[in-house]
Amino acid sequence: MASPIYLGVIGVGGVGTAFLNQLARLPNAPQLVLLARSTQTLLSPTPAYSPSIPATSDWKTAVETPSLTKSGPLSADEIAAYLSAAPGRSILVDNTSDPALAGSYPVFLRKGISVVTPNKKGFSSDLTLWKDIFSAAAQGQALVYHESTVGAGLPVISTLRDLVATGDEVTRIEGVFSGTLSFLFNTFAPLAAGGASAKWSEVVAQAKELGYTEPDPRDDLNGMDVARKLTILARIAGLDVQAPDSFPIESLIPAELASLPSTADGITQFMTRLPEFDGQMSAVKEGAEKQGKVVRYVGSIDVAKKEVRVGLQQFDRDSAIAGLKGSDNIINFYTKRYGGNPLIVQGAGAGGDVTAMGVTADLIKVIERLR
Amino acid sequence: MASPIYLGVIGVGGVGTAFLNQLARLPNAPQLVLLARSTQTLLSPTPAYSPSIPATSDWKTAVETPSLTKSGPLSADEIAAYLSAAPGRSILVDNTSDPALAGSYPVFLRKGISVVTPNKKGFSSDLTLWKDIFSAAAQGQALVYHESTVGAGLPVISTLRDLVATGDEVTRIEGVFSGTLSFLFNTFAPLAAGGASAKWSEVVAQAKELGYTEPDPRDDLNGMDVARKLTILARIAGLDVQAPDSFPIESLIPAELASLPSTADGITQFMTRLPEFDGQMSAVKEGAEKQGKVVRYVGSIDVAKKEVRVGLQQFDRDSAIAGLKGSDNIINFYTKRYGGNPLIVQGAGAGGDVTAMGVTADLIKVIERLR
Repeated sequence: MASPIYLGVIGVGGVGTAFLNQLARLPNAPQLVLLARSTQTLLSPTPAYSPSIPATSDWKTAVETPSLTKSGPLSADEIAAYLSAAPGRSILVDNTSDPALAGSYPVFLRKGISVVTPNKKGFSSDLTLWKDIFSAAAQGQALVYHESTVGAGLPVISTLRDLVATGDEVTRIEGVFSGTLSFLFNTFAPLAAGGASAKWSEVVAQAKELGYTEPDPRDDLNGMDVARKLTILARIAGLDVQAPDSFPIESLIPAELASLPSTADGITQFMTRLPEFDGQMSAVKEGAEKQGKVVRYVGSIDVAKKEVRVGLQQFDRDSAIAGLKGSDNIINFYTKRYGGNPLIVQGAGAGGDVTAMGVTADLIKVIERLR
Repeated sequence: MASPIYLGVIGVGGVGTAFLNQLARLPNAPQLVLLARSTQTLLSPTPAYSPSIPATSDWKTAVETPSLTKSGPLSADEIAAYLSAAPGRSILVDNTSDPALAGSYPVFLRKGISVVTPNKKGFSSDLTLWKDIFSAAAQGQALVYHESTVGAGLPVISTLRDLVATGDEVTRIEGVFSGTLSFLFNTFAPLAAGGASAKWSEVVAQAKELGYTEPDPRDDLNGMDVARKLTILARIAGLDVQAPDSFPIESLIPAELASLPSTADGITQFMTRLPEFDGQMSAVKEGAEKQGKVVRYVGSIDVAKKEVRVGLQQFDRDSAIAGLKGSDNIINFYTKRYGGNPLIVQGAGAGGDVTAMGVTADLIKVIERLR
């Protein structure tokens, strides 16, 4: 029942640190034998894979632990070789957003190393990688869990997989998949009568100051993060989406500003010139209000029509999407069994702790299946 | 990877039939070797436990299958003996609402038979049974999954277990846990301005005609079904709730009608006399409206205060609970990690297909862990 399981963890950023914190409190946790950040790797010495690395939330404490092997960054092949030679089943937790590491998941999985990750890249890039990941998992009898790739710790991936696995027919998925864009529109075009009078550029600036946007707000406004999440859900629902840009994505970056460089200077220029386009966004907002509706930035998947799209849409004021608060995500699953009213999951869809929660919950499930 | 798993299914009512339908479409389904309804049992012949029973949705087809052993109702001990002697791991799916069968879960679990069920009785009766179920499961190295005991197929139990297992601190759970009471209040006190003018007794009569209530509507109005669901959630959240009636439950059955017998005649008398109390319910509705709120029948758990209660409560008109539609359930999880805005799960919380979906999804998870 309790054969030892060996764990490698890559990434000690916000999610990685929160994850290690949760791991440290887990009863019957697997043995942490590899901990890596971009410049350095800690390893339990071979061949015993012992002592293990203390799952402290602090890289410094870990790195000062005696009798660990220290090295620079290892290649995916080296990490896979190390983990697969451990005297038991092993799991890789990838807490980075590194596309190269995600591209190597098939290498790990074919060697029987299960993968748990919030990293969207492996599941939302080219369709061949998606297919390779799952065929490698089948070949290696390894597991892949990635709940936190959509909606952080919210039960989104698991719910969709349950619907599909039990034979329900998912007809449509629609929701707000970005905490940043949720905040921007809940603030810019609030449901409350009267509403806010802040201009679009002011709301973007406010979100940037509060740390709600990426360091470069254009990384939120271009819709690509939402498009990656939609790609993942559409694939689970059975659509062969070739790539995260193979369907219509409405960017909120004005065309005139699209060519600004992605440097610190480019960000400053973007924020300085954004007010020029406030009139456009106000017109969008008021257009919705004239229909008695509100505007929101959503992703939607029409499974029957095989249509995926990301962009602005108007919603009835009494809809759950219109009523969203703060920076919450909401995901509506319309299915044959659920009928007219969708199955809805809603709540914080970003943040270190809740993203790590999805990773930890996945890890627990993988351990339960491997033991 | 694919050692055979043996399945016993009890109950061929609405949920049971929908479940068999889903089972029939499951790839790599376990072998159905026992199928029972209250008066009759079908068994694959021992010692080979073969041929298995076709998982048709139709009892008649199953019963006409040649080479099966037929008998009257078996005791729990007999069923446990039969399943535990199968040449592989076995699972019991209890699709009844039978308290006696639920009381025997420890017998199955101690023998290593995993249990999957939408039957609330085992988890919401006396606390000693709850404890016995989980210690028996640990002893027998068997699994217990019961997602559909709360909110049918909605991811409620699994979400709460994930929150707890990953170390989040659940502070409060609040929601509408009855499809019937959801419909009654969404119709009687709708959010839409102007709203409905139907009297309470008329709404209850309408719900009864539509088949939204139990045959005896008092089985919904007494709040016990909600209280049982709250008992289950509170226990998972860590509270030692002794019994489903060990906390305040506000019954919607007027005290003056409480002594009417639970016969067909009693139902008729109840429905005939209910209009006498319409004034009381209108006062409750109007009291909320005067505060700018709406009244809803909810269950709530305050984990810190160890308080569980079921009854009428007023909600802000822009709250998710007030905005609920049709006969949907909604469950709000307030936790330390999720902060001010709760994690919300919402959708149909009753009905054969969606309840069976929760059972089938659980069965898949148990199979994945046993294989």
